[in-house]
Amino acid sequence: TMAGSEGSKLWGGRFVGATDPVMEKFNASIAYDQRMWDEDIRGSKAYVMALQKAGLVTQEEMEQIHGGLDKVFVEWSSGKFHIKPGDEDVHTANERRLKELIGEAAGKLHTGRSRNDQVVTDMRLWLRNGIDTLKGNAIELINTMVERAAVEIEILFPGYTHMQRAQPIRWSHWILSHAVALSRDVEQVEEIRRRVNVLPLGSGAIAGNPFNIDRELLRKELDFDGISINSMDATGQRDFVAEFLFWGSMCLTHLSKMAEDLILYSTKEFSFISLSDAYSTGSSLMPQKKNADSLELIRSKAGRVFGRCAGFLMTLKGLPSTYNKDLQEDKEAMFDVYDTVHAVLQVATGVISTLKVNQKHMEAALSPDMLATDLAYYLVRKGVPFREAHSCSGKAVYQAESKNVPLNQLTVKDLHSASPLFDSDVSSVWDYTSSVEQYSAPGGTARSSVTAQIEHMRAWLKAHRE
Amino acid sequence: TMAGSEGSKLWGGRFVGATDPVMEKFNASIAYDQRMWDEDIRGSKAYVMALQKAGLVTQEEMEQIHGGLDKVFVEWSSGKFHIKPGDEDVHTANERRLKELIGEAAGKLHTGRSRNDQVVTDMRLWLRNGIDTLKGNAIELINTMVERAAVEIEILFPGYTHMQRAQPIRWSHWILSHAVALSRDVEQVEEIRRRVNVLPLGSGAIAGNPFNIDRELLRKELDFDGISINSMDATGQRDFVAEFLFWGSMCLTHLSKMAEDLILYSTKEFSFISLSDAYSTGSSLMPQKKNADSLELIRSKAGRVFGRCAGFLMTLKGLPSTYNKDLQEDKEAMFDVYDTVHAVLQVATGVISTLKVNQKHMEAALSPDMLATDLAYYLVRKGVPFREAHSCSGKAVYQAESKNVPLNQLTVKDLHSASPLFDSDVSSVWDYTSSVEQYSAPGGTARSSVTAQIEHMRAWLKAHRE
Amino acid sequence: TMAGSEGSKLWGGRFVGATDPVMEKFNASIAYDQRMWDEDIRGSKAYVMALQKAGLVTQEEMEQIHGGLDKVFVEWSSGKFHIKPGDEDVHTANERRLKELIGEAAGKLHTGRSRNDQVVTDMRLWLRNGIDTLKGNAIELINTMVERAAVEIEILFPGYTHMQRAQPIRWSHWILSHAVALSRDVEQVEEIRRRVNVLPLGSGAIAGNPFNIDRELLRKELDFDGISINSMDATGQRDFVAEFLFWGSMCLTHLSKMAEDLILYSTKEFSFISLSDAYSTGSSLMPQKKNADSLELIRSKAGRVFGRCAGFLMTLKGLPSTYNKDLQEDKEAMFDVYDTVHAVLQVATGVISTLKVNQKHMEAALSPDMLATDLAYYLVRKGVPFREAHSCSGKAVYQAESKNVPLNQLTVKDLHSASPLFDSDVSSVWDYTSSVEQYSAPGGTARSSVTAQIEHMRAWLKAHRE
Amino acid sequence: TMAGSEGSKLWGGRFVGATDPVMEKFNASIAYDQRMWDEDIRGSKAYVMALQKAGLVTQEEMEQIHGGLDKVFVEWSSGKFHIKPGDEDVHTANERRLKELIGEAAGKLHTGRSRNDQVVTDMRLWLRNGIDTLKGNAIELINTMVERAAVEIEILFPGYTHMQRAQPIRWSHWILSHAVALSRDVEQVEEIRRRVNVLPLGSGAIAGNPFNIDRELLRKELDFDGISINSMDATGQRDFVAEFLFWGSMCLTHLSKMAEDLILYSTKEFSFISLSDAYSTGSSLMPQKKNADSLELIRSKAGRVFGRCAGFLMTLKGLPSTYNKDLQEDKEAMFDVYDTVHAVLQVATGVISTLKVNQKHMEAALSPDMLATDLAYYLVRKGVPFREAHSCSGKAVYQAESKNVPLNQLTVKDLHSASPLFDSDVSSVWDYTSSVEQYSAPGGTARSSVTAQIEHMRAWLKAHRE
Repeated sequence: TMAGSEGSKLWGGRFVGATDPVMEKFNASIAYDQRMWDEDIRGSKAYVMALQKAGLVTQEEMEQIHGGLDKVFVEWSSGKFHIKPGDEDVHTANERRLKELIGEAAGKLHTGRSRNDQVVTDMRLWLRNGIDTLKGNAIELINTMVERAAVEIEILFPGYTHMQRAQPIRWSHWILSHAVALSRDVEQVEEIRRRVNVLPLGSGAIAGNPFNIDRELLRKELDFDGISINSMDATGQRDFVAEFLFWGSMCLTHLSKMAEDLILYSTKEFSFISLSDAYSTGSSLMPQKKNADSLELIRSKAGRVFGRCAGFLMTLKGLPSTYNKDLQEDKEAMFDVYDTVHAVLQVATGVISTLKVNQKHMEAALSPDMLATDLAYYLVRKGVPFREAHSCSGKAVYQAESKNVPLNQLTVKDLHSASPLFDSDVSSVWDYTSSVEQYSAPGGTARSSVTAQIEHMRAWLKAHRE
Repeated sequence: TMAGSEGSKLWGGRFVGATDPVMEKFNASIAYDQRMWDEDIRGSKAYVMALQKAGLVTQEEMEQIHGGLDKVFVEWSSGKFHIKPGDEDVHTANERRLKELIGEAAGKLHTGRSRNDQVVTDMRLWLRNGIDTLKGNAIELINTMVERAAVEIEILFPGYTHMQRAQPIRWSHWILSHAVALSRDVEQVEEIRRRVNVLPLGSGAIAGNPFNIDRELLRKELDFDGISINSMDATGQRDFVAEFLFWGSMCLTHLSKMAEDLILYSTKEFSFISLSDAYSTGSSLMPQKKNADSLELIRSKAGRVFGRCAGFLMTLKGLPSTYNKDLQEDKEAMFDVYDTVHAVLQVATGVISTLKVNQKHMEAALSPDMLATDLAYYLVRKGVPFREAHSCSGKAVYQAESKNVPLNQLTVKDLHSASPLFDSDVSSVWDYTSSVEQYSAPGGTARSSVTAQIEHMRAWLKAHRE
Repeated sequence: TMAGSEGSKLWGGRFVGATDPVMEKFNASIAYDQRMWDEDIRGSKAYVMALQKAGLVTQEEMEQIHGGLDKVFVEWSSGKFHIKPGDEDVHTANERRLKELIGEAAGKLHTGRSRNDQVVTDMRLWLRNGIDTLKGNAIELINTMVERAAVEIEILFPGYTHMQRAQPIRWSHWILSHAVALSRDVEQVEEIRRRVNVLPLGSGAIAGNPFNIDRELLRKELDFDGISINSMDATGQRDFVAEFLFWGSMCLTHLSKMAEDLILYSTKEFSFISLSDAYSTGSSLMPQKKNADSLELIRSKAGRVFGRCAGFLMTLKGLPSTYNKDLQEDKEAMFDVYDTVHAVLQVATGVISTLKVNQKHMEAALSPDMLATDLAYYLVRKGVPFREAHSCSGKAVYQAESKNVPLNQLTVKDLHSASPLFDSDVSSVWDYTSSVEQYSAPGGTARSSVTAQIEHMRAWLKAHRE
Repeated sequence: TMAGSEGSKLWGGRFVGATDPVMEKFNASIAYDQRMWDEDIRGSKAYVMALQKAGLVTQEEMEQIHGGLDKVFVEWSSGKFHIKPGDEDVHTANERRLKELIGEAAGKLHTGRSRNDQVVTDMRLWLRNGIDTLKGNAIELINTMVERAAVEIEILFPGYTHMQRAQPIRWSHWILSHAVALSRDVEQVEEIRRRVNVLPLGSGAIAGNPFNIDRELLRKELDFDGISINSMDATGQRDFVAEFLFWGSMCLTHLSKMAEDLILYSTKEFSFISLSDAYSTGSSLMPQKKNADSLELIRSKAGRVFGRCAGFLMTLKGLPSTYNKDLQEDKEAMFDVYDTVHAVLQVATGVISTLKVNQKHMEAALSPDMLATDLAYYLVRKGVPFREAHSCSGKAVYQAESKNVPLNQLTVKDLHSASPLFDSDVSSVWDYTSSVEQYSAPGGTARSSVTAQIEHMRAWLKAHRE
């Protein structure tokens, strides 16, 4: 019969035409949404409890459905669940299987529910969990960085701006600059989690739930923080996905910055660090090559992830409100960004915890011209306005370059042509450790200030690990 | 002298080559960053106070500088500030002018400061204020929507999913679905404001401040919530800009959705609403045309704003850490997104507050087939499992289509072929008001539920207006 | 031995550290690049011929390698190729298997070749073929549209601008407007194919090929149109991928436009078309729903595909030249865009070839106000400057609206208040067929002009099918 | 009268409501589209010729209109054109002014024309010209690169892959790798120009032109290559803009790659090149700094320009067909991309033509480990399969690292532990010039091959300059 042959589709009973196999595949989401099989089952278990409370299923039917869903759970978790033709999505598959296992009672499960509120409930459950994992990964990375910074606080090396040597800084100061950026990512994903953790179930297809279902019960059962305010918004919005995709983009943009620094530092020319072999690869052609593939991949993924964000935003743009099939693009984007960020954070942790610092090369790269600002400050401390002092120091730099000597090799007499205030005590300027120790205001590179940053981050880590 | 001829550039004293006029223009930011003239002055006034406390300028010098900056303020605010060749950015322009006004003391202002921490301080001050304005605009729009929803709560019209008639809903329910989305935007921008409102001043170029400047004093003077943790991060990160650009993209994506709905509703075919002439335009060719240009522009701007976000993220991708000139792309993006969102929110408020609802057309568009779900629920209430009930209702729909009659014109006898449980009381199903009143669970379209949403939003508005 | 335990990696012999399993997976591309197994084999077969010509392998070794590669081919094509741990990419896998099959001679295959020139050769071979398939799909779709346009040329319906009724047009004119856009996509992908079809093999890792390999022989064997000019560019550029990704974005943006129109036309309110059931789906909740899922999916995919383009461009931005591991992002993007465009074009063809036009509804939607421009032209033909005529017609429209009558129900006397030149022959204006027949200039909606467009497109199709 | 008070808007005669000043500004495009004043006048001059031929204006009226338009031209070109309130776009402004100058005859100009076909004609004229300028800029840059490559062909330096030293190459080979990429950009923009250079005028608002206007005459007058096929497509598509925006993105992505290389090469650590002072800037804080701002800005602009592309594509996504106001986003994007690419190409030409190569540092950076591949080839030439030779060379590298000596300092005895085939003639391997001379296959870094590339590019330049 018609009903029979069409029974494998949730909407049954109406369509008479045949379908196009390309369209079938194009339309189906089971290939990827099966990843939410557990969330789908949990959502259904909670929903049937609400149905029972509302008097739409009996206690016995509820137990029957729960028992069936538990069996479906076991099948999935043991890898024995068989997806059949017609299982266009995980919701259909689970309900189809439930019916095979417990018969007609399964037909009561979807009462007052729509795939529109079902799918978005599954996604929120899934992403809530995903966010917790990523937050844990990020915290592990930050912790690695902070502890490394604590150990290597005495190492100085050149700080760069515009990729040009700027001023001597502590290596720990560099590490912490990236750790601090990642800590903002953690704080932001905590905020996103709050917006993710809102129950949409009970919104139906568009108009809400007509059986006065107890949404507060659903909220508690599924451990959501709150319930959605408006059913049309609840089923038609994917802001939480878009926000997550952008969050991933920001987080990986931070790591692309760190990766770029480290790739630079691992060139022969800089030679500041050596990557562990575990995070390098060689060349199929050139035997001497040791490439920082891990870092290059990290750098590249910011693009990939942002592409997902851009693609999804473009899909959302100009859509009419409520559920449109276009929203089906949400899941692959969400999964891919999760997987990518998950891998990147772990690899980054591995890279940071195993890289070797070449302290000798770092220190050798410090050069007297990097103290030109200190030379200006020498004059400032003698009362010269900074603008004038900067100009005097600039003249000294120019003189040293012209003479082809390092800046600290200019004699006091040489310096006099830049400013008569230079005296023999100018020699005190040429000390890298003294230089960094000047920067003791909060956030600076002095030992005390870097130590304070470490303490701050340790406290932060403690607070955000719960 | 060389110093003299180069005096118009902040770095003075070193360069000997000439510059390329195309490069000069390419490099300069004064054309747009002058928009932060006020913030630049405020930042400098606070900074000189900190210099005075640190003993780097005297009380008298401080007063001199403050006096000079006040004059610069007056020149800008009265439109009399003259930008000169060589004023490559607003910082240079202001300091150049200060020096003209007060002489050498001006040269002390920049002591220990860099344009790197200066510019990002200006931007944070500017954006903090910009966010407050946009939040106010959004709240005004939400308020308009909520109050309109309150007044028009009795109007029913078709709810659509997939742009197909789905179920009868209240027009207010539709309005609120968009208001709720915007309320998330407000909450999110409040979070962003907290991350914007962090003081970077005192971070210098990269290493921090070497004169132990009192950053807490700066924070208080400039009314920031906190101070930045790490000087390299503080000067090199533009996360707050990127976040703001994405925020604008999400907010306008919400409004693109609302605009799409309203454009649809204002077609001849739907005829649900009429736009005020103030927000429509005509055709240069076709005299009868009345186009919803305001809504089309709103819809389009989501693209523009997201383009700014995409462009800036791409610029950030793979940059090494600390300040690189690439970051100069931050300001035009920030200003453009601010201006666009500012205009869109105001125009949207105008559109919403002046559009005319054609209640008659809305109600005429409700059709019995939209109650097919209710027909299924009729059977559910008689104990039929929903899946079966759905199938029976589907058969009835098919039958009505085959007979070419409205669904509510099927006789009880006709309906029996779909299910023997249909009885004469099925007539009670064909009432749109009863239909919507079923959806009384929180978030639904029943009167009580929509009223609760309105109350919720009114309380929310009160809380977020402070 | 070390060499033995590391033998599964192409670079062998050097690394002594262990690897991280997360990193291994992060680094490997075999999961997706195996899709190019055939191209990889073909490239290697050609390369060994060039080696033989250069005297680096003997005739016998060449035959041995060819024989081995043929066996590898059979294994892949029969689904019997086993990927082993350590097969990080398809190149490694194929060479590993070749060695298992033929022994040491396999070690000569990679002489002077690098994975850098190998992978990009494989990709160009793959994409060349992919482009041919997509071009065929697009041509099939265009052909379907053109032939449908030919058959349904007599059907009139409202043309819209700004989604408002503008002027009567032929349905065929609408169809052709989309076919013409797709024809530009075909022309553009032909140009891209020319840039794809350039041989990079023989470029080595960066510096070129040191054995004076005959690149012309390689070109001929692999049927490329030309050879790359510079080895650094050849191995480090992925312009052809980026161009292809953008091409897919443009093509699907075209189809998103067509889909949007058709979704609109298939609403109850427009009712211009009915989709075949094969391209519609129902609702899990609402029995009466018939949703244009196929069209919504088509509309959504423009976002997905552009996301891939955006992501890849962002990955490329700021990369240093030559091969960097970041480029590994190229393949998944290329495959996904190919698959998506491939599916979309086929589904679109199915939709267009099976949709039902509701001519009655189309014609009923034509309304006299759509002839307001014709009313102005009536005056123009009597010598009134168009601007004035437009204004007069506008007054008539206003009058009709005020009187609440259709525009064609105004009496000549009524019209006189707009212009004294209106006379009884104005009645000739109110004919939709006459109206469209005015637009006989090339590109217009008159029968003759639409017929010319059809003929043009038929000739174009003939030319582009070869 | 109403008509009078509304006369300043093209659609006149109908609207009775007031407008919102924010909406007025939001809606107006005159602030930026005035840039096309010349194209708008040229289009109108041609159009009135076609009207005259069609008998809609007399010879005298045509001359009157031409004369008036010539005056409008003079006003614009002398900076004396006054934009008035109500001039919402350049089309309105020009026609308003024409009417002021010549009176009623001006009212005939727009007969059968719509702003829909007018604006896109103006844009195509403008962009055609813009493309020619950019092509010229690109050719100048390529020429500079090619001639520099010719002069500096003897300079060797390290070629990098993965930012790690790979093999010795010629500096000219590096220059040409970027020149070749730019030559593809030129070829591509030539293709785009062909698609830009198609006449849309005569398409009206949507349906075509009703006065059988001679579009061939328009084409010739305005020097287009062809005429648009379908009026709906002609007025509603902006493919040529999108293509151009993407083209700019690709071109600047190429230059971001070159900039990244050069920024790297200009670091202290690499010290391969020194930028001219004209393309560098200093620091407001650090007197010794010389930053490659020009290159950083070039690198950043790829993001900006791609953002415009992304934004516009997102605006286009899902738009219904024909003209929608959303398309107004086209112009600012087009202008900004033009301006940016225009500046970048010129600055890049300046940078390349003035940078100083530090040959000594380049050559000092060549190190024996970069010849490890050559060491393997030494064995290959003795009959060892490459895979084995690669492994032997790898062992030698490892040995040298363990002994902490350069690779070329290993004795023949040392080398024997890697392979017994190493003999005293291995010393011939350690010569960088011999090494590069091996790469004589087309595209390689041997002198002959680089010379061939230069000749190829010179011929290409000649062909593309016309």
